[in-house]
Amino acid sequence: MKLTILGCFSATPRKDTNPTAQVLEINNHLFLIDCGEGTQVELRRNKIKFARIKHIFISHLHGDHFFGLVGLISTFRLLTRETELHIHCPQGLKEVIVLQMKLADSWTNYPLFFHELNSDDSELIFEDDKVEVWTIPLDHRVYTNGFLFKEKEGERHLNMPAVIEANIDIAYYNKLKQGHDVLNRDGVLIDHQKVTSPPSPPKSYAFCSDTAYKESIVPIIKDVDVLYHESTFLEKHAHLAPKTKHSTAKEAALIAKKANVKILILGHYSTRYDDLNEFKHEAETIFKPVKLARDGKHFDFD
Amino acid sequence: MKLTILGCFSATPRKDTNPTAQVLEINNHLFLIDCGEGTQVELRRNKIKFARIKHIFISHLHGDHFFGLVGLISTFRLLTRETELHIHCPQGLKEVIVLQMKLADSWTNYPLFFHELNSDDSELIFEDDKVEVWTIPLDHRVYTNGFLFKEKEGERHLNMPAVIEANIDIAYYNKLKQGHDVLNRDGVLIDHQKVTSPPSPPKSYAFCSDTAYKESIVPIIKDVDVLYHESTFLEKHAHLAPKTKHSTAKEAALIAKKANVKILILGHYSTRYDDLNEFKHEAETIFKPVKLARDGKHFDFD
Repeated sequence: MKLTILGCFSATPRKDTNPTAQVLEINNHLFLIDCGEGTQVELRRNKIKFARIKHIFISHLHGDHFFGLVGLISTFRLLTRETELHIHCPQGLKEVIVLQMKLADSWTNYPLFFHELNSDDSELIFEDDKVEVWTIPLDHRVYTNGFLFKEKEGERHLNMPAVIEANIDIAYYNKLKQGHDVLNRDGVLIDHQKVTSPPSPPKSYAFCSDTAYKESIVPIIKDVDVLYHESTFLEKHAHLAPKTKHSTAKEAALIAKKANVKILILGHYSTRYDDLNEFKHEAETIFKPVKLARDGKHFDFD
Repeated sequence: MKLTILGCFSATPRKDTNPTAQVLEINNHLFLIDCGEGTQVELRRNKIKFARIKHIFISHLHGDHFFGLVGLISTFRLLTRETELHIHCPQGLKEVIVLQMKLADSWTNYPLFFHELNSDDSELIFEDDKVEVWTIPLDHRVYTNGFLFKEKEGERHLNMPAVIEANIDIAYYNKLKQGHDVLNRDGVLIDHQKVTSPPSPPKSYAFCSDTAYKESIVPIIKDVDVLYHESTFLEKHAHLAPKTKHSTAKEAALIAKKANVKILILGHYSTRYDDLNEFKHEAETIFKPVKLARDGKHFDFD
């Protein structure tokens, strides 16, 4: 599981700071999460292959989280993409995009699907044999979801010397990986646990931005490996958090602690702060380890 | 009259090339012409004060000419702009912008006016005591206008030693500047031409992008000081120009020659070309002088 931060600052794009966008690589999927203005250029800068992105998740319809989407969709068209693209987003975004296509008389030459969200409950919005994606209902000024990405339990690993020693035909290897006992060439039933080791623990990532402090998300994100939680403010500006429906670094850390996550990543910093280390120090009074998102930063969780 | 090129490449924004946007400073006005994705960052990079932009002119509704507008409008709001903003654009853009404001529940705190265009004739769309702006109907795949910016005739310049020698009261100086003969302190009628010199010749700038070769624009842009004309292609790809409704460098030069402009600036290059000097060389076989637009380039025509 790998995470590339394309942008992690709040509000407006500037010369050296980008609005929210990140790419999660999990079990060979490449998921784009949020898409602020300039995201397509940051994708190029980080050498991420456009064609590998098949699903885009948009948290909410504030501009710093989606103004780059229409341009990305349009660029995919100009690059003669053929792969289908799925947008998971709050209700209303399809109308915005389609209206602009209509005015430009430019329709995609690849299949484009919108999956619009309006539930206030956590729901499963994507699933295949390897990965699940769930919404995390957040508390912001407009309808907002975070997203929980979970690997499914993988297959058991064959212990090859033991498998050979047990005289098992290759035709049964997949059964063993799936956790079944099998007959060997001599007709003896072999306990799969004796010739395989347990699957690697499935990884999980929770993206929570933008949101006020919201304790009710804790059960949804319980025990995740990595939590990205917004920290627009430091505690010295805590009075601004409730009315703008954002969080402080300390609040993000409280959520991380209650949810028993393994790693907390902070981001969505207000551009009023010069020293981002203050976010880390503040959060570390509650929870460790804390990592700081930075534009262009790459995290490898394998 | 000064021109700053924020972006001059066609199609998609990339690491080192920006889509169309430019700022024209003329008679103390700062006009933004087109607004591709990333324009707000380029405005910051070129240290252009946001508050000085009161009029934005959008040529057409292809993304590389307006996808940066919604973000710019939104950033103005976040910066608590109070100055009014006027958008001159093809019909339909207001709906796109307003829909996004509605979804974000974020309305501007400054007065925002849309002046939507749908005429196929050249029309006067802005005028004050110093400047006029006219549309230049172009020939592209969607409804498109270029824009002609013209200084009005200025005031005559006082020849101060002559004025003093003629014994004229200061109360009459403005009348002289406006070209009236006045009485001096001795009651003698003074010919204004004897104590003033003619006004500086008014400057003019024509922006023509995107368009196929269209000779009927020649009378509209006749004798302008500076013509920016798109040249998406070189002649070696001339076969692509009619179907995409773009021009070659040679065609841009033909328009410049027929219109008897003083300077031609080329831009809106296809990103297939590595050496932009080929555009200049090709155009110079027809017309001189030719300048090449480049992102971040500043032209001073005073």
